[in-house]
Amino acid sequence: MEVRRVILLMMVGGGGAGAGAGSPQQWRKRVREPCKKLVLYFHDIIYNGHNGKNATSAIVGAPAWGNRTILAGQNHFGDVVVFDDPITLDNNLHSPPVGRAQGFYIYNKKDIFTSSLVFSFVFNCTHHRGTITFAGADPLMNKTRDISVIGGTGDFFMTRGVATLSTDAFEGQVYFRLRVDINLYECW
Amino acid sequence: MEVRRVILLMMVGGGGAGAGAGSPQQWRKRVREPCKKLVLYFHDIIYNGHNGKNATSAIVGAPAWGNRTILAGQNHFGDVVVFDDPITLDNNLHSPPVGRAQGFYIYNKKDIFTSSLVFSFVFNCTHHRGTITFAGADPLMNKTRDISVIGGTGDFFMTRGVATLSTDAFEGQVYFRLRVDINLYECW
Amino acid sequence: MEVRRVILLMMVGGGGAGAGAGSPQQWRKRVREPCKKLVLYFHDIIYNGHNGKNATSAIVGAPAWGNRTILAGQNHFGDVVVFDDPITLDNNLHSPPVGRAQGFYIYNKKDIFTSSLVFSFVFNCTHHRGTITFAGADPLMNKTRDISVIGGTGDFFMTRGVATLSTDAFEGQVYFRLRVDINLYECW
Repeated sequence: MEVRRVILLMMVGGGGAGAGAGSPQQWRKRVREPCKKLVLYFHDIIYNGHNGKNATSAIVGAPAWGNRTILAGQNHFGDVVVFDDPITLDNNLHSPPVGRAQGFYIYNKKDIFTSSLVFSFVFNCTHHRGTITFAGADPLMNKTRDISVIGGTGDFFMTRGVATLSTDAFEGQVYFRLRVDINLYECW
Repeated sequence: MEVRRVILLMMVGGGGAGAGAGSPQQWRKRVREPCKKLVLYFHDIIYNGHNGKNATSAIVGAPAWGNRTILAGQNHFGDVVVFDDPITLDNNLHSPPVGRAQGFYIYNKKDIFTSSLVFSFVFNCTHHRGTITFAGADPLMNKTRDISVIGGTGDFFMTRGVATLSTDAFEGQVYFRLRVDINLYECW
Repeated sequence: MEVRRVILLMMVGGGGAGAGAGSPQQWRKRVREPCKKLVLYFHDIIYNGHNGKNATSAIVGAPAWGNRTILAGQNHFGDVVVFDDPITLDNNLHSPPVGRAQGFYIYNKKDIFTSSLVFSFVFNCTHHRGTITFAGADPLMNKTRDISVIGGTGDFFMTRGVATLSTDAFEGQVYFRLRVDINLYECW
């Protein structure tokens, strides 16, 4: 990818900053092709006081008007949720996990559901080893939301990109499943 | 920007690692010119038990000696504050917002005011669409503080850079306004 | 570093995408040489209700079954810890600090010790000025763990890389010391 990018840039440099096959405009479009693509799912089961055995996440911070076993009113504004969720290749919670999604989200708005996310995918399977780290805003009432891939290790050494989140299932205040379309634009 | 950078590098490559117009020294200086600059303000009104309607942030974590309606003693060490603050083009709280600053800060030092920040600017206006994500240390008693731009989406696809924060107003423990000078050095 | 990288890439471009000294395979290996290396230590003394004077970190979020003066059961799952730890050049807590490690970690797994980390090194010494910001997953029972360097300012302007953490000392639930091998692969 890096190689291809620079070769294209050399064309641009050689041909002048003008029109033609190697024009900056075209270059832009081509550079935005991902060097690696992944589609994964992760599954979040929120602790609600009764499901300690199955829960994969827990409320650990809450605003003055909230508590830590029920998500707060006002669109959960102020709730901090820590998770360690299984990642699967398809949308089945019971498929063999390929890794764990570990991090936290914070509901940060009173008037609609929206959150800030920081988490890593920690892979430990035959397909992938290493980590991908994500950060961004997740306005979760939108059908799709883009967040940033800010780094990686192992198979994903130094990677960067954009991940598109979509809510694949949502069952009350206990279970949700996110589909993550990861597009990496920097691969080393 | 990328185009210009590489062309410069080619000059360096062609001319040898020596003196002259294309010397590494000069290249460095030019590469550090931002490819995009933005100046924005955001406004934080902290929930204090009485201002639920106007508040844009809330304490959601506190140390053992603190609580969630008053910032803790010892320079607020340990307070975790979640925010969803309006972003404006000028320093007027009542100007039409161009987006929201969403994320959190954590006061992390006992002996002086300082915090860690992770947040995104979520734009939704005619000027900008997309997000910019920031992370870093904010020693807020300094006049200016540099944090990292770690990623972006939409109009700010894959961006990186440095943002300089300065406290533009500070009214007791309820309101502050930050000026953010964003300098992006990677634009796709 | 950037200069060397592009010169190598030009060799690849000129020689075709084939075998020989400048083959993509070899280029990969060389690019993965760091442009800057640092080895540093930081020291974390967790507040336990009695050590307020020495403590450099504090529990600020805890799950419903935990509290903020003792790390929670189930491998501390759900504890959020804020820190402002001294950084030293060697493994001696009493060496003169070269800066502070500021940020937080969250224990995010019930069945083993593991955490998510976001923090910055804030340097203020004759050797270094500026900041380096880190994020990633820290499965702390592993001997070494790789996290991402996601940005920097000052001497570390726009840097990226990988940092390898190892637990250099661990004394009960009050003190631990991490060794951080920082390898930067993007230097501006």
